Amino acid sequence: MSDPVFSRVAIIGLGLIGGSIATALHKRGLAATVVAFDQNRESLQLGKQSGIITEAADSIPAAVQDSDLIILAVPVLAVKAVLREIPATALITDVGSVKTTVIEDSREVYGLIPDCLVPGHPVAGSEKHGVTSANPDLFENHKVILTPVAETKPSAVERIRNLWRGLGATVVVMTVEHHDRILARTSHLPHLLAYALVDTLLSQDDGQEIFRYAAGGFRDFTRIAGSDPIMWRDIFLANGPAVLEILDDYQEKLEELRSMIDQGNVADLQRVLNQASQARDDYTQNDIEKIRGGS
Amino acid sequence: MSDPVFSRVAIIGLGLIGGSIATALHKRGLAATVVAFDQNRESLQLGKQSGIITEAADSIPAAVQDSDLIILAVPVLAVKAVLREIPATALITDVGSVKTTVIEDSREVYGLIPDCLVPGHPVAGSEKHGVTSANPDLFENHKVILTPVAETKPSAVERIRNLWRGLGATVVVMTVEHHDRILARTSHLPHLLAYALVDTLLSQDDGQEIFRYAAGGFRDFTRIAGSDPIMWRDIFLANGPAVLEILDDYQEKLEELRSMIDQGNVADLQRVLNQASQARDDYTQNDIEKIRGGS
Repeated sequence: MSDPVFSRVAIIGLGLIGGSIATALHKRGLAATVVAFDQNRESLQLGKQSGIITEAADSIPAAVQDSDLIILAVPVLAVKAVLREIPATALITDVGSVKTTVIEDSREVYGLIPDCLVPGHPVAGSEKHGVTSANPDLFENHKVILTPVAETKPSAVERIRNLWRGLGATVVVMTVEHHDRILARTSHLPHLLAYALVDTLLSQDDGQEIFRYAAGGFRDFTRIAGSDPIMWRDIFLANGPAVLEILDDYQEKLEELRSMIDQGNVADLQRVLNQASQARDDYTQNDIEKIRGGS
Repeated sequence: MSDPVFSRVAIIGLGLIGGSIATALHKRGLAATVVAFDQNRESLQLGKQSGIITEAADSIPAAVQDSDLIILAVPVLAVKAVLREIPATALITDVGSVKTTVIEDSREVYGLIPDCLVPGHPVAGSEKHGVTSANPDLFENHKVILTPVAETKPSAVERIRNLWRGLGATVVVMTVEHHDRILARTSHLPHLLAYALVDTLLSQDDGQEIFRYAAGGFRDFTRIAGSDPIMWRDIFLANGPAVLEILDDYQEKLEELRSMIDQGNVADLQRVLNQASQARDDYTQNDIEKIRGGS
């Protein structure tokens, strides 16, 4: 094995993603030392005991000191408070599902966007959460989106790109705005719809019975709604404008479908279902299988 | 192997469910002969060539003649036309996801509910469809719901119960109304929401791009929307009242979530997400895993 690319990597937030990065770095020999900090001391101890991290730090400043890479893996609305404790000298990246806020936060904390900050997002969720679900292969064959801004040093982007490639991911670069709009559509809205469904069904008289018949289609929704609630609360709020924009369109579409059912409009209903089914067949068969196989 | 329970089983409609029943009957030695009819001659030929069925019939009357069990596996709004061609003398069951209509249809066709008709529903969907996806183990560890009415002979229910147990399923008996309400919630509404999402995203400028980032949560929706569109069109229309009733509640809940995001209402948003996540953990962990393993 060649020398590790990073001598000391600091991971702030040791949940599913932070823990999976830590264990993936070890497995692939990419970091000599992996130090972590988490507000939850139990997660930190579990990470240390299981050998996922080399060192458990007592504070954020202690974790980031002398680190040549700092990875923020906390819920998106917790990023600003973390940045306040980090000098913008080392290479910094994050893993949040909203990129607008990390840019705004760093402008607020540092008075500018540091050239060593590379906003990133591994599109590799799971209904599992917590460090105990850490998986060194979580990112393999998954996409990681980087959203550098004008201020970002190209060499910093290159190092983060290599980091993710080293962990088996495919790296895609796009603007902050494009990322947040795409994610609102493909991830944030679906999660919101799933939470709304589980909550609607729970408030029925037979709330508990419904879970028994989950095989009829509901199981995919419950899987989504099993994700970390605080992480998702933050995402919905941080990406509010983009989420509400696509939610508008969704509510309108749902109202249309409702009318078709109400009026027994066979032809239009079939047209819509055909379209969705066809699109799925055309564009996704291969990708989806690949994604499912890899997750 | 003991003697087959049925000497001649007629399956009307040779898609995923009809084909899976046929091949499961063979595998478990439950039927001496399995004859099928399908409007789609290609499906029928494929079924015959692959050995899934013993005989391909030219018409519904030819298929059901001398059969001691008739299984209707057609889209729910096609049931009435099929019943018109079937004398209500042999044991008859169906597999539709809506049970109100099969009862109404038989009353209309026969002038009464035949005592040998046992409405049934294997809760074992798949995004795959067509006879080429037939799977002899599709029903193993899945639930099958039977909804006999006052007129149904107990001995007929018993024979259908044994049929499904023989195919590895767990049989549950409930009323027609309860079935249709439960299924509207756990299956029909989730499918409607998934179709609405795929259709909403398709009509965006970057409609095709969204499929590339499906791993973020959207993949579970596309899987649902990959189901057979005609089957689903029929289900939504046949179970319209129950679907619209739960859709009312859903739209209201979605509007509430929308306001929470719009107003940055952290506390309420977190309460709703916690509730959904908690419920999923409490009631479903084991069941869902079992169901996923079996499907």
